[in-house]
Amino acid sequence: MTLAQSAPGPGGTSTTAPRTSRSTTADVRQNMLELLRQRPPRTSLEAPLYTDPAMFSLDIEGIFTTQWLFATTEAEIPDPGDYVTVDFGPVSLIIVRGDDGQINAMHNVCRHRGARVLTDRHGSTARLTCAYHSWTYATDGTLIHASSPGETFDRTCFALRRVHTRSVCGLIFVCAAAEPPTDIDDLEDTVKPYLAGFDIASAKVATRIDLMEEGNWKLTMENNRECYHCGGHPELACSLFATWGLTEDTVPPELSADWDRSLVADATLQQRCDRYGLPWQIVEHLTDRDVGYRISREALDKAGESFSVTGQRLSQKLMGDLPDFRLGRTSLHVQPNAWFHGLSDHVITFAAFPVSAERTLVRTTWLVAEDAVAGEDYDVDELTYVWRHTNAQDADFVQLAQQGVSSPGYVPGPYMRSEDQVEAFVTWYTAHMVDHLAGAESRRQS
Amino acid sequence: MTLAQSAPGPGGTSTTAPRTSRSTTADVRQNMLELLRQRPPRTSLEAPLYTDPAMFSLDIEGIFTTQWLFATTEAEIPDPGDYVTVDFGPVSLIIVRGDDGQINAMHNVCRHRGARVLTDRHGSTARLTCAYHSWTYATDGTLIHASSPGETFDRTCFALRRVHTRSVCGLIFVCAAAEPPTDIDDLEDTVKPYLAGFDIASAKVATRIDLMEEGNWKLTMENNRECYHCGGHPELACSLFATWGLTEDTVPPELSADWDRSLVADATLQQRCDRYGLPWQIVEHLTDRDVGYRISREALDKAGESFSVTGQRLSQKLMGDLPDFRLGRTSLHVQPNAWFHGLSDHVITFAAFPVSAERTLVRTTWLVAEDAVAGEDYDVDELTYVWRHTNAQDADFVQLAQQGVSSPGYVPGPYMRSEDQVEAFVTWYTAHMVDHLAGAESRRQS
Amino acid sequence: MTLAQSAPGPGGTSTTAPRTSRSTTADVRQNMLELLRQRPPRTSLEAPLYTDPAMFSLDIEGIFTTQWLFATTEAEIPDPGDYVTVDFGPVSLIIVRGDDGQINAMHNVCRHRGARVLTDRHGSTARLTCAYHSWTYATDGTLIHASSPGETFDRTCFALRRVHTRSVCGLIFVCAAAEPPTDIDDLEDTVKPYLAGFDIASAKVATRIDLMEEGNWKLTMENNRECYHCGGHPELACSLFATWGLTEDTVPPELSADWDRSLVADATLQQRCDRYGLPWQIVEHLTDRDVGYRISREALDKAGESFSVTGQRLSQKLMGDLPDFRLGRTSLHVQPNAWFHGLSDHVITFAAFPVSAERTLVRTTWLVAEDAVAGEDYDVDELTYVWRHTNAQDADFVQLAQQGVSSPGYVPGPYMRSEDQVEAFVTWYTAHMVDHLAGAESRRQS
Ligand code: FES
Ligand code: FES
Ligand code: FES
Repeated sequence: MTLAQSAPGPGGTSTTAPRTSRSTTADVRQNMLELLRQRPPRTSLEAPLYTDPAMFSLDIEGIFTTQWLFATTEAEIPDPGDYVTVDFGPVSLIIVRGDDGQINAMHNVCRHRGARVLTDRHGSTARLTCAYHSWTYATDGTLIHASSPGETFDRTCFALRRVHTRSVCGLIFVCAAAEPPTDIDDLEDTVKPYLAGFDIASAKVATRIDLMEEGNWKLTMENNRECYHCGGHPELACSLFATWGLTEDTVPPELSADWDRSLVADATLQQRCDRYGLPWQIVEHLTDRDVGYRISREALDKAGESFSVTGQRLSQKLMGDLPDFRLGRTSLHVQPNAWFHGLSDHVITFAAFPVSAERTLVRTTWLVAEDAVAGEDYDVDELTYVWRHTNAQDADFVQLAQQGVSSPGYVPGPYMRSEDQVEAFVTWYTAHMVDHLAGAESRRQS
Repeated sequence: MTLAQSAPGPGGTSTTAPRTSRSTTADVRQNMLELLRQRPPRTSLEAPLYTDPAMFSLDIEGIFTTQWLFATTEAEIPDPGDYVTVDFGPVSLIIVRGDDGQINAMHNVCRHRGARVLTDRHGSTARLTCAYHSWTYATDGTLIHASSPGETFDRTCFALRRVHTRSVCGLIFVCAAAEPPTDIDDLEDTVKPYLAGFDIASAKVATRIDLMEEGNWKLTMENNRECYHCGGHPELACSLFATWGLTEDTVPPELSADWDRSLVADATLQQRCDRYGLPWQIVEHLTDRDVGYRISREALDKAGESFSVTGQRLSQKLMGDLPDFRLGRTSLHVQPNAWFHGLSDHVITFAAFPVSAERTLVRTTWLVAEDAVAGEDYDVDELTYVWRHTNAQDADFVQLAQQGVSSPGYVPGPYMRSEDQVEAFVTWYTAHMVDHLAGAESRRQS
Repeated sequence: MTLAQSAPGPGGTSTTAPRTSRSTTADVRQNMLELLRQRPPRTSLEAPLYTDPAMFSLDIEGIFTTQWLFATTEAEIPDPGDYVTVDFGPVSLIIVRGDDGQINAMHNVCRHRGARVLTDRHGSTARLTCAYHSWTYATDGTLIHASSPGETFDRTCFALRRVHTRSVCGLIFVCAAAEPPTDIDDLEDTVKPYLAGFDIASAKVATRIDLMEEGNWKLTMENNRECYHCGGHPELACSLFATWGLTEDTVPPELSADWDRSLVADATLQQRCDRYGLPWQIVEHLTDRDVGYRISREALDKAGESFSVTGQRLSQKLMGDLPDFRLGRTSLHVQPNAWFHGLSDHVITFAAFPVSAERTLVRTTWLVAEDAVAGEDYDVDELTYVWRHTNAQDADFVQLAQQGVSSPGYVPGPYMRSEDQVEAFVTWYTAHMVDHLAGAESRRQS
């Protein structure tokens, strides 16, 4: 019976993959599969993959209800009842700290007649009550009250539909698949030595900013994955070495001084890290697994402490139990929708939330030390200065790209030498979508 | 020949079903048919039926150009030339009082090059003149002037395309089908003893309010068909018994006092009605015919006279030739798009006009006695107070439901005990759409 | 290889037809072909051709990337580096005066990762630099700088994709087809004697106005192609004879005085033109070729000099080397998207740019003599008065038509006697789309 099919038992943790709500024809699936399979290496995607609403729906199906996605941090939901809501296209999820302190995630859809349950972006509530007919759920999704139930009505069949969650050093990932990819274990094993010291779970949220980018989510991600465009980021360029993403072979002559300076800074940083027993090596698994990632610790220019115009710290309190302000930036890229920068004085998380084929919400969250005091230890405007401007510039770039690829005059173009991570992102995306589409096809045929 | 095919003869009353303007594939029809056929009883519809634009087009085709629809009241077009325009999705209709006093309805589409003829929501005009090239039509749709006609031009072939109309006690229904359902006769026979006394045709329009709801028209109708959500209507709850829609078996303990009070009030009302020779019995044919309906006369709480916070009358003049202010509310629900409340001092009509898959216009019209004087006998703000607030609350509920069902995380949910009329609406809708889709299919195959 | 396929060689002029970015199914193509083939003569098109987004995409493919289109005038890009950008639906083009003085046109899409290169509607620039990663192109589209190129990177493979251009007496046409229609030569041969004297290439741009019409581009064009609606243009009617588009047989009695007056004015104008050696005969090839057109010189009412309320000149300087202010109006209609009026004192160009199935941008540009001085020789408000109002009225008409044809109640209607050019436009459109769709179909099958 439909109603019971997807219902977890009492206190159950069973989860189910959501179904796409619009029929996409076999034609579109086949077309998408061909476009993906025929992509030449190091070449941007064919236009429909950035523009077609039906292919966007397949992205939601094949990536955003199948893979692990970064959603929020433990810092944002410290206490029982604290919640955050996030939307991946049409999928709305609640991430809530349970009464038992565990992190729960569930579809933000009432099991009665489907109303959205929570409408705020974040908040705190002892119970999740649907505004329509007051069905009331516990923080683990269990239905605890529905008025006028019939005699045969079984409350246990109508818990909110759960999705999987996983906190990796305080970064909360969610997955709506029935059987989530297991290599998230590997992500955790690898990044823990880099991130544990920041103590993200106990951090304080300084502020969050949502920015709507007028482009496909993949253009947002491609934009994030290279610094070939960083000439367009004057504020960021103050503390970021201009040679990011380049190698000895590919550094252009005009950047050789920057190159040398960055070598010195990195060597110094590495010695310092070694002294503190902190890892700094680049570990990169962007394409060879489900939870693709890259982590590294790299030096910053100038004062070398933080993402400020002077390179100096923006908050006077060290994050977690970090031993030093001069630890550069610890940068983590995770497929498909997130990136992070850990500075000694603050941590910034970035998440891309697809809205439609041509629109993506980028949510940036600034975390500071648990005991940092606004106005005393840090100033929110200063703290956010560089990335507010950088994000706005990136939104412009993404919009230009979306406009251009929407033209029949667009042909896929080449990824240049400093765009390796763009290629890695597109490779990861292509492989996972091909798997999904081909798998669905073979399931249909058998 | 295309042009003449659908033209009525001189003075003709022939009508034709409009054609949908966008091709919907056989796939969508088949998919919709399956979703409808597989619906378990007492379960909300599958998501695409609330969200898919192609399925919305099929709703327009299968319901809104096939069935009788409530459009307006005679009170709104008392004199020849008075007109109202209404839109059902892309279908725009003119309802106009003819020179002979008859009610005519026709497509609001010029027969020359298709311009919309009337753009105001209501007005009065001796002739219907297209603004584009001044083709001029009489109030029965006959083309009476087109400049520079060629010698072979036959004006009689280019009347505005008529649709059927029917006034039931002053409530005007329209139907664009070639052969409208005939059981509207039964509606009239049944409701006349309840409604005749209100004399709706002679009433005065106190005011009209249009409200855009951000939801599928079926969510608007489902919302209207139950009071399970009436905890969200504090203003309405003042005069409406909280036990509406419940039965002895299903009244929860906390409402037992209300239940008793409503039994007393209903018994008193029924005796009073019997004295006046007015019917009060519930007559319900919501699912077993084309023109599904339900009519009843029920007591109101408190003063029991009208939909006010105190239950007291909002207009000092009795409607029509009603004998008493304490006659409760006469409530009529008609499938698929309307509901009505008759109070002794005023009548309210509600019509749902689908706009798109995710948007519905709700038009509420308040009628008072012909001789009631604004500012003296009634105050418009007071008159509309309860339902202005109630409608706004309902719009919020409908939007939450639309948001929720748009998520892949939505699964159809159960209608509860007090949602019998929701089930009745969905049953009526499902049966008629299945008939339409299966009929079209078998016509295609033969 | 995909990337090189469409690349012109060094300094190359090779052009390629853009590809549509969204898959339109064979169903839609077949459906469109049938609707076009079944059109009865002198009858407006079936609704989907005005409303369906998929058919709009086919219009872009079959007309707007296949035929010659009017884009701008030489007057707007007098010097090297001057450019204009125009959009035909999703196709964005740059028209730029090259360093060598030649006119170049190219897709406004960067060959790196597809960003829109120029975002202003017009301007001047020595180089075309993409804002995203600073790829820099010369005014002929050649890529002259891309930072961090790999060793195998061949700049010559990444020129902006060129489209064909052709200046006809200063009117710039573009064509994105690989092999543009050749009968544009005939247009030039025919119109040169009419237009040369205006010296459009050297004219001064007085002003440009963009107006968004809420209708399909074909409704915009149909509206332009008849004066049956000119009763709705009181300002224009001051100087335009009300009998435009009519013949002796079709003039209604109420216009017989206008008719006689126009005969006298035309005869006088023709004698004057003969004296100056200027042609005035109507030449009409609206339907029998790819570059369909109609040119004529006709008298204006009242003072007979210009499109003003009094018929008097609006600029005190004669255009080019015209000999007289009393030369009526030289009107040129070119399929599929433009019309022009040449007055002795100014020239007005009109271009329709499709935006979506239901939206069209109309760009009107007023040109005056090279040496005319604003505020002295002409006043911009006065110069634009008649057509600002006329365009706004036409936008209303087009919107009414779009609203009407969107209704299932619409049936195609008859073109009247004074709508011959509407029929010619629709005939041209239908023939070219049928050719395109049938050709594509037979190519698929072989
Ligand atoms: S939809 Fe949530 S309680 Fe009814
Ligand atoms: S469209 Fe109505 S008169 Fe021409
Ligand atoms: S997209 Fe133009 S330079 Fe990269």
